[in-house]
Parts: sequence; C-alpha cells; structure tokens
Amino acid sequence: MKILIIGAAGMIGRKLAAAHTNHDLILADVVAPPDLPNSTQLTVDLAAPDTPARLIAQRPETIYHLAAIVSGEAEADFDKGYAVNLDATRALLEAIRATPNYHPRIVYASSAAVFGRPFPDCIPDDFHTVPLTSYGTQKAIAELLINDYSRRGIIDGVSLRLPTICIRPGTPNRAASSFFSNILREPLAGKTANLPVPEGTRHWFASPRAAIGFFRHAAQMDTGPLATDRAITVPGLTATVADQLAALSRAAGPAALKLITRNPDPAVERIVAGWALEFTATRARALGFAADASFDAIIEAHLTDTP
Amino acid sequence: MKILIIGAAGMIGRKLAAAHTNHDLILADVVAPPDLPNSTQLTVDLAAPDTPARLIAQRPETIYHLAAIVSGEAEADFDKGYAVNLDATRALLEAIRATPNYHPRIVYASSAAVFGRPFPDCIPDDFHTVPLTSYGTQKAIAELLINDYSRRGIIDGVSLRLPTICIRPGTPNRAASSFFSNILREPLAGKTANLPVPEGTRHWFASPRAAIGFFRHAAQMDTGPLATDRAITVPGLTATVADQLAALSRAAGPAALKLITRNPDPAVERIVAGWALEFTATRARALGFAADASFDAIIEAHLTDTP
Repeated sequence: MKILIIGAAGMIGRKLAAAHTNHDLILADVVAPPDLPNSTQLTVDLAAPDTPARLIAQRPETIYHLAAIVSGEAEADFDKGYAVNLDATRALLEAIRATPNYHPRIVYASSAAVFGRPFPDCIPDDFHTVPLTSYGTQKAIAELLINDYSRRGIIDGVSLRLPTICIRPGTPNRAASSFFSNILREPLAGKTANLPVPEGTRHWFASPRAAIGFFRHAAQMDTGPLATDRAITVPGLTATVADQLAALSRAAGPAALKLITRNPDPAVERIVAGWALEFTATRARALGFAADASFDAIIEAHLTDTP
Repeated sequence: MKILIIGAAGMIGRKLAAAHTNHDLILADVVAPPDLPNSTQLTVDLAAPDTPARLIAQRPETIYHLAAIVSGEAEADFDKGYAVNLDATRALLEAIRATPNYHPRIVYASSAAVFGRPFPDCIPDDFHTVPLTSYGTQKAIAELLINDYSRRGIIDGVSLRLPTICIRPGTPNRAASSFFSNILREPLAGKTANLPVPEGTRHWFASPRAAIGFFRHAAQMDTGPLATDRAITVPGLTATVADQLAALSRAAGPAALKLITRNPDPAVERIVAGWALEFTATRARALGFAADASFDAIIEAHLTDTP
C-alpha cells in the first residue's frame, strides 16, 4: 500500500513513518523528511500551488495529514495560518476531487482547539466548536470540509481531535504545555524541570504510542458508522499534575521529585486554565479508540520507546 | 448612516431596504436591486474579484449579507456553491481587513442547515454543526470566519440562523418548504393549495416581519455579550400544520380549509422529516430576539403587510 504522510518530519510524523516501513511511504514536509527504506521524500511548501498535485501524484491510498502552522504562529501571522491550515488543506482536497477514480482515506490531525470557553468540565461529543484562536478556527473549518468531501464520496476522511501528547520526547520547548512532559521526561533522565502551575491542575493526555495507535486505527477503521460526522474526539487520560508526580515517584523513586523546581508562571497558568479539562469521548471509545490506562503506563511506554 | 444590503433583490433584502429608507442605502444583488430613494444600486457577480472592493467603497457602517446560492443549487453545483457562499464571503471579510480603520457591523444570514441529523427534538444553543449539505457546510464555515474576524476586531459580526419564513409573499415556488406558506397564503386569497404532508408535521417558523426584526436587532445590539460566539439561533414559533390550519380557519372561516387539497408527496415528506423541529434559542431570547406570538399573529401580519 502507498501511504502519504504530510508533516513527516514532526514528532508524530516520524513515529507514524517508522510504524509503516512495510509500505511504500511518501514522506512530505517543509523540512527534509526522514530517509527511510521504500520511501520517497518530498520537501515542499504546503502552500505552493503545485504542491497538492505533487503530493498525490502516486495516488496514495492512505494520507495522514499532520502538517500545520501551530497555534501561536497562526495567531501571530494571520495570512500564513489561513494559507497553510485552511487553503492548503482545501487545495489538497480539490486536487483529489480533480483526480478520476481516486478516493483516498485521509486521516486529519485536528485539535481540541476547535473548542473554546465557556464549556462544561467534561465536553460531550456533540458540543459546538467555537474556537478562541485562528488556529482552532482553521482546524474547525478543515473538519467541515472533510465532512462535506467525505459525504460526497470524494474522500473517505477522519478528523482526530487529539489530547495533549505526553511524554513528548526530545528537549523542553516553548509551548505552554511543555511542562507537562518536562516534569516527567527530565527527572526520568536525572535532570531538573520546573513546574509552573499548582499540583491540582488537571489536563487531558495521550502518550505518543497511544496517538500513533489512534492514527493507525483511523486509517483502517470502518468509516460507515461515522456517517456524516467524521470528526472524532479521541479518548485521553485525565490526570492532575499530582497524579503525574505520583507516577513519577513510583517509576523513579521519591528522589526524582526533588529534581522538580516550583516557580509559578502566571502566564502559563492563565493559558492552561483556558484549555478543556476532559471529554466524554463516548463515540470514539465505541469506535475502538482506547486511551492510555494510567500515567504509570505512559511512563513505561516512554521508557520503552525512547531510544 | 450608510447601510449595505448584499442580496437586496430577494424577499428579505427588499423588506430590509424598505425599512431603512431614512439611511443612505447601497443595494447590491446579482439581479437589479430595487431603485429606492437615497440608494445606490450595484448589480454585481458576488464571486467576481473586484466585487468586495466595490461593495465597501463607500465604507458602509452596517452590512447585511443575505446573498447565497441556495441549498439545492449549491448541492448540484459544487464549485458555484463554494465560490459564492464561502469564497465571496471570505473575500468580503478580506477586503474589510485591507481597509484601514474600518470595522463595520456585519449581519450575516446563516441557516439552520448548519445542523444535521441525528439531533434532539429541541436543539440547544451549544449543539455541534454537522451539516448534511454543502450549503450548510458553507454557512457553518462562514460563521466560523465571522467569529474569528470579529474576535480579532476586524469586523463586528453577528450570524443569524433563521427559522423557515412563513407566510412568504408572492407565488408558490419549488422549494420543499413552499407548502408551509402556500396553505395559508393561497386560501387567504381565495385560491387553492396542496398539503403534501400529514397535519401532525411540526416545524419552526418566523414571519417576514419577525425576520426583519431579527436583522435590525442584530444590526443595533450590543455585541459585547456575544463574546467569541457570534452565531445566534433566533427564536421561532414551533407549530404543526394542524396549528396553521386552525389559525387559518379562525382568520378566514372554515370555508378556507376547503381550498386545501391533500395529495401526499413522499419526496417532500422525506425532506421535511430531515429538518430540525425546534430550538431552545435560549441565548437569543436573553439577547432580546422575540419570536412571533402565534400563527394568528403571523396571519394578521401577513394580511397587514401584503400590498
């Protein structure tokens, strides 16, 4: 099978590619994608007019579309956010529509950013999308397009709204959510990390391994039961920072907790307070999507999967 | 005040224009708009590249955007529907963004077609938009754009999801909903009309007078309480066909009922069965939008307002 991964140089893209090396891979990104066996590399500007045709020239049966201008940049650069997150996605759909007898499965990385406050503590599957950012707006619009193009039989699409990925591999970054990973990854490696929010802070998580599982399941599932609603809020693990730290202590001993500094950051607290706490994800569970069992399991997966 | 009405040749557009003759009107439509005093007429293709700039050249403080490719045509002509209902609306927003110090109030005619089955009998304000048509998709996307452009302060937008207008003036047309008006308007004028569905059929209505009231209120209201959610499901009157006929009998006597034939139309029944029955419209009522009191009031308004 031919599989196209758009955004193949990112964290999820690399892991997805590594999980599909028994297929013909087309790996596309704005920076050089990984050079795997049986793979074609496309270093492309997603917003360039000829990019969609290049991406689908080999008629991949499955397309993972993970590429996006992230939230902060899409908010700072209005035109770039709309050009990449909306127009390039629509151009891809249009290129597929223009190709005879070609109706690929598209798995689209959407986001919980399609939701904005006010919302209930546990957001149901039929809750409206009122984003608080241009990024969330662009993701919500792409979901609507994927629904409409799927309804018309042009594509067979699935949009996934993912939890915050934890433990992200690599090094601390500037994302407001970075500390959720830092406070586990760094002490597990004997390094220090700062906790900028109170221990009672609750959030909604998936391990990288669970996220890869969600994407693979979405690529293979029977989409008949989705009918006209192709956007799925996948299940996450709801936990507090205290839950995370308890799991850290069980995995690495109480000494690991001493590597965590506690310098509050009101800006981070404010941003995190605006995020959704939890989702019912009832529909996704019924469709076979499964969350991580516990933070102990998330830590174990991290220790196993990290080279 | 300068007021732009896009879609000024339509039924609502003409009535809105007639209600604003004490202002400078810019009346735009794809066919010749009405020639009222103090008005500029623009006969334009909404999808033409220079149209947005022409529309806002006089910097109207209020814009009523009513123009659309209707549901059936947008479903039959994919490109035309997206070009007019999505791209032309976005081009208008972009033309405004490109104009210095210009942040008009836009009142956008959205539609209950943003909702699709399955839904509850009474749809709450926070229900998700999963359209079953490309028209509904385009309206839902335009709502998201109006939210985002409003959040950024580019425009001050309000999107209205209107009930089915009844009693529509004029003559019977081919819309599936046409009979809801026909069975009142025609007998009131001594003419026959056909009822293609059972008398127990429930639906959600607003008189043309109420609809004009909704638009005018949306143009003048304080939009602060809307915060980031600029899409308002306005209140309608929920009634069965039997309720309509009872009101007809009270207004015109039992003899009027004899002008109604009852030839079932399974195709119309099927289409109507897919529509929403009722909305809570809690938010709209709190914001000062008021539904018609009864079908007696709707008939009285029709008899008063029809020339």
